[in-house]
Amino acid sequence: MRLAIAGAGAVGSSVAQLAGDYGHRVTAVADSSSAAIDPDGLDVDAVLERKDSEGAVGTADPGDALETDYDVLVEATPTTLGDAQPGFGHLQRALQRDRHVVLANKGPVAERYGEVMALAEDSAGEVRFEATVGGAIPVLSTIEDYGPETITAARGVLNGTANFILSRMAAEGLDYEHVLAEAQDLGVAEADPSFDVEGTDAALKCVILANVLSDGREYTLEDATVEGIEAIPPSALELARGDGRTIRLIGEVAGGEIRVGPRLVPEQADLAPSGTRNIVQLETENAGRLNLSGRGAGGPETATAVLSDINRLTRAVP
Amino acid sequence: MRLAIAGAGAVGSSVAQLAGDYGHRVTAVADSSSAAIDPDGLDVDAVLERKDSEGAVGTADPGDALETDYDVLVEATPTTLGDAQPGFGHLQRALQRDRHVVLANKGPVAERYGEVMALAEDSAGEVRFEATVGGAIPVLSTIEDYGPETITAARGVLNGTANFILSRMAAEGLDYEHVLAEAQDLGVAEADPSFDVEGTDAALKCVILANVLSDGREYTLEDATVEGIEAIPPSALELARGDGRTIRLIGEVAGGEIRVGPRLVPEQADLAPSGTRNIVQLETENAGRLNLSGRGAGGPETATAVLSDINRLTRAVP
Repeated sequence: MRLAIAGAGAVGSSVAQLAGDYGHRVTAVADSSSAAIDPDGLDVDAVLERKDSEGAVGTADPGDALETDYDVLVEATPTTLGDAQPGFGHLQRALQRDRHVVLANKGPVAERYGEVMALAEDSAGEVRFEATVGGAIPVLSTIEDYGPETITAARGVLNGTANFILSRMAAEGLDYEHVLAEAQDLGVAEADPSFDVEGTDAALKCVILANVLSDGREYTLEDATVEGIEAIPPSALELARGDGRTIRLIGEVAGGEIRVGPRLVPEQADLAPSGTRNIVQLETENAGRLNLSGRGAGGPETATAVLSDINRLTRAVP
Repeated sequence: MRLAIAGAGAVGSSVAQLAGDYGHRVTAVADSSSAAIDPDGLDVDAVLERKDSEGAVGTADPGDALETDYDVLVEATPTTLGDAQPGFGHLQRALQRDRHVVLANKGPVAERYGEVMALAEDSAGEVRFEATVGGAIPVLSTIEDYGPETITAARGVLNGTANFILSRMAAEGLDYEHVLAEAQDLGVAEADPSFDVEGTDAALKCVILANVLSDGREYTLEDATVEGIEAIPPSALELARGDGRTIRLIGEVAGGEIRVGPRLVPEQADLAPSGTRNIVQLETENAGRLNLSGRGAGGPETATAVLSDINRLTRAVP
């Protein structure tokens, strides 16, 4: 397949780097200020080197990347709330041109799911977004194969940064501010960690799950009840530990409700992974509970989910 | 889709019962001595009631089930070794008629993988077999979506009976014979448990994984190094426990080698599920380790995997 990649951050760059191994060709890469375009296939290494050295992937206008030859638009610009721009606009343009869209950007399917599905309905292109929930973990593909109507609930640990902080606080008896600083040093938390520690990122993933599992109702971030981890004192973790439990930031989608917040879970339970690992539990109508766990973030990990989606497109009815 | 189901045991019956919920129609069900056939769709409840009361699903010849109208043959006759008959013959006939085949029967893909793939190559029908490895767990679909060439190793607990016995032995300090009898009372172990406790069942699943992950070499049960759990004394489990470990029957596929045998694993590790639960770990080239766990056996659970495969067929390029 020929890929156009919007967004040249960790995920976009990883998709570009791995595309060749999966038999694809990259015809365009765009960052926020420029684009590199070659319908015959870009020299990806050269493009990414240029990005490193000159701060721009190329000399073309970023908008031109959407007008070149490609089969799949990989939308990997940063997730934005509300109007989900510029990601939504990119998706819209690609679908209008009857191209497929694979999202790593959560915005369009968390905030404007109904519009995205309507655009896909009118297009010969398909929209896939495995990378938006649980990184490398095959959550949405499993739901699709099982049939969304046979999944009765989904819950899990969906933010690696928050999980890292809670794991460390519990293991070392350290307070939130201390561990957050440590996580920032390690690159596990961003300079502004609010998106992760306030539960917004986990909530967006739950909203996407709710949309996929819904039989018609559309959800946005506003429908989620969200609590973060900033207010958890070490004493709460200590208290939990005395009872063989710990605290994790759990997201849950069930019965049309979306909730994200700190929850007490048994210390050795599936829902208490350590470090940055994510887990998703799916409750199924006919086969009990499925546990799917793996790396929930990271460039190559998330790129793998994008490439899995592209693999599925190659098998889809045109 | 129109389904013909060969085999009316726990899995075949469950597929028949659930098919309607998934939008499919059952046009034939065959057991070893008879068949019920109706190109317009069978009354599944009546067929299964007849099976219960009269010991036969219908009055037609079982072979006729393969000649009626259907889109997918669900092959759910018992797994046999060597020539993998009658399952292999059923698969062959369906593919020759350009029909799809979904296997719950491990025999054809464990013992005659190359022939199965060659038949599929010459057919407009496709062969899928998610149900043969890990019951309800989406193992093969994940490998397919990721791309088999990006999976470097697979290991796991792939037999619920053996895992139940080892879990109980470890938890209660009881000996093998005692727990086996208990498992037989509970219906977790069969009257002749050798297939499960000698490691053959887990090995067949590993052979299937090896075939799927292979880039050309074909594997059969003969290529697997297999050791069972019958000789494990309670003292070994006690010794392991003193060290924070336990013993599980682990199957592993890596570097062209297939090994199944009792292994020491940390008591709280992912590879030490309790009871009849199965887990599969996939080591990936670009996304670290994936853990997939769930119910590895049972009629509705395995039927769910069959129905997932059929879902994937409906999206496949014809």
